[in-house]
Formats: sequence, structure tokens, C-alpha cells
Amino acid sequence: MNLIDNLNWRYATKRMNGTPVSEDKVNMILEAIRLAPTSMGVQPFHCFVISDKEMRAKISEEACKQPQIMEGSHLIVFAAWKNYTEEQVEEYINRIASVRDVAVESLDGFKAALMSITTRPAEANYQWAARQAYIALGFGLNAAAHHQVDATPMEGFNPAEMDKVLGLEDKALSSVCLLMLGHRDEATDYLVNAKKVRRSEDQLFTKI
Amino acid sequence: MNLIDNLNWRYATKRMNGTPVSEDKVNMILEAIRLAPTSMGVQPFHCFVISDKEMRAKISEEACKQPQIMEGSHLIVFAAWKNYTEEQVEEYINRIASVRDVAVESLDGFKAALMSITTRPAEANYQWAARQAYIALGFGLNAAAHHQVDATPMEGFNPAEMDKVLGLEDKALSSVCLLMLGHRDEATDYLVNAKKVRRSEDQLFTKI
Repeated sequence: MNLIDNLNWRYATKRMNGTPVSEDKVNMILEAIRLAPTSMGVQPFHCFVISDKEMRAKISEEACKQPQIMEGSHLIVFAAWKNYTEEQVEEYINRIASVRDVAVESLDGFKAALMSITTRPAEANYQWAARQAYIALGFGLNAAAHHQVDATPMEGFNPAEMDKVLGLEDKALSSVCLLMLGHRDEATDYLVNAKKVRRSEDQLFTKI
Repeated sequence: MNLIDNLNWRYATKRMNGTPVSEDKVNMILEAIRLAPTSMGVQPFHCFVISDKEMRAKISEEACKQPQIMEGSHLIVFAAWKNYTEEQVEEYINRIASVRDVAVESLDGFKAALMSITTRPAEANYQWAARQAYIALGFGLNAAAHHQVDATPMEGFNPAEMDKVLGLEDKALSSVCLLMLGHRDEATDYLVNAKKVRRSEDQLFTKI
């Protein structure tokens, strides 16, 4: 199928059939997430990739017991950085210098731009980080559709409680969205044959 | 090329060569953006698709004069809804009922969930809307890479000034990110052969 066919094939799957997603496909989806672009390349988030059933059961309790969490096989929790620090800038600059084999000093201008981000209020940086995680969520959703893996993006959970389950209370991370991977259950999912509802081209776009 | 090859091929293009992106490809990228999933399917954003050079010149002034804005051919401005209103819920519910040919009353539970969003503070809804726009940004970036169109996501602009240029001051929209489409200029873009810098799988993912 072509790209648009894949994007029409996907939908926010409500019921999954218990068939696990192959490790190969999970790894390709994770690689797409890893390659997602982010503001200045910072990747200000971390992903928890959870196949463990006990952990998924705990998470399910904090996510309205949405059945896909147990019926699918891999849950990705995107957790955004709560702030952006000078230490994180240093790590990133050193990594760029190492990967591209350039002098750290040659990155001084870029480093100054990154440092200016660290001076913003933590809440602004957290919202910025969350948005970057959503680009990666988009990449994960695309990759899943490409590999005919069903995927459900979810925001219906209590971040504070989710953070407790994942032991993030004393970490500089907070959960912002979930991506459940699995395979649709055609017999029980009421959405499986539902027409996709989207605003029309005229409603969504203004061409200038 | 396969999906991962495409994602490795793409990069945040810094210089473009003036060759316009074909209308066919632009339309396929817009269709991917239109098909992007969003929280409860609301699509709480609008996109301005700007090929007009005069308008791009004005926008360039508010976006650090990044050269791609004039060197590429199509600029997509994602503008998030500043709030979510009961009228918007009504429009959406009526549209679902129409597209899926179901009674409006059958959507009462879903409608109540949407109405509860309208009671949140406007700022919370704006941040939520912005995140949904970033999923669509991810879809646009993927589609561009798929069609070998270069694309530069940009946050380096002043939203208030950008909103003025687009005449959004008295609309319930505010610009959150840009996506410039064009074709890379291999001769002048210093990033064209630069290695991609990403955290490693071990740094970005925790498997449980």
C-alpha cells in the first residue's frame, strides 16, 4: 500500500486481539521514533517501552482501564523532560562534536542558543519538550501504519499517577502521552469499519 | 527506499535550491497532515499553506530571515486553536453523525467527554491543541521524506508577530510551528553531509 493508503488503514484501535507485535516491527517503530526531528535536535523526552504484563496492568489502572493496554503487546510511554539544564546542553554539545568529529569550540554559537533555552521558566521548557515528544509520537504512528501494526495514541490518563507507577516522581520526567501497539480485533472493535472523520481540505487549509 | 532509509535521508534542510515542490507532492503531504490523528479526533488547528512570495517575504522577517523560507516553495504554518468551544463540539458531533450516518443522540457520551474539555482553562486547551498540531507536523515531515521532498520544521519565530502577518489577532488561532517545503541545495547547505546526531537506543528507551 502507498503512504496515504496506510494512513487511511490506521485508526485509533479500541480493541486488540492479543497477537503480539513482532520484535522486528517494534524495533523499526522505535527507530522511527529515535529518528524523529526535534527542536534543535535536543530530543527532550524519554520513552518507556513496556511489554511486561504486570506493569501494563498497573498502568491500565491509571489509564481508564482501556482494554488495548492488556490486549496489545507493547506500550510506549512518552515522558517529557520537566526542564532543560546546562548539563544537558553540555552532554549534547559533546555528543555532536564526537559524532561529527568537530571541535567543541566550533559549536559555540549553537551552544549559546541552547543555553538560552535553559534560562526560560521550567513550565515553558516542559511544554516545549512535550511538543517535541508529539512529533516523535507522529513518527511512531506513521511507522506502525507502514508496518501494518495497529496503534492507539492515548492521552486519557492521570500523569501524576502514571509517573508514580513508573517511578518518575524524583526524576526530571513526566508522562505526556501513550502509544499502544498491537493488532486490531476485527470481531469486537466497533471502530474497525467506521468511516474516518476529518475536516475537509477546505476546512483545514487556507492556501495563500 | 524503505521507511528508515527515508527518515535517515531527511534532515532539517538549511538551504534550498529554488526548485519548487510539485503540486502533486504538496497535495500528498497535505493529505497526510489531514489524516493525522488528534486527541478525540478534534484536529484543533488550522494550516496556512503559503506559496505566495510576498507573504513569505513578510513571514521571513518574523522568522529570523531563515533563507529556506524564500528558497523553498511552500511554507505551512500550523496555527493552534486558542481554546475549545461548545460551538466547535456541536460542529464536530454533527459532522461525525453525518459522515458515519448515525443519530446525533448515539454520540451523547462522546459529546459529554468533548464538552468537558471546553470547561478547562483556555491556556490548557491551547497547549493541548498545540500538541495535536505537532502530531500533524510529524505526519507532514514523514510524508515529505517519503516523497523525497526536503522539509524544515521551524520554531524560531515570534508567534505574536507571525499572527499579525497572517491576520490572526482577532481569530481564535495562534501560530505554533512552521514546516518549509523545498529541495536541498547540496552546494550551499553545510548540513547536507553532516551525520545525524541522535541519542542511542539505550539512551532514549527503557524497556520494561
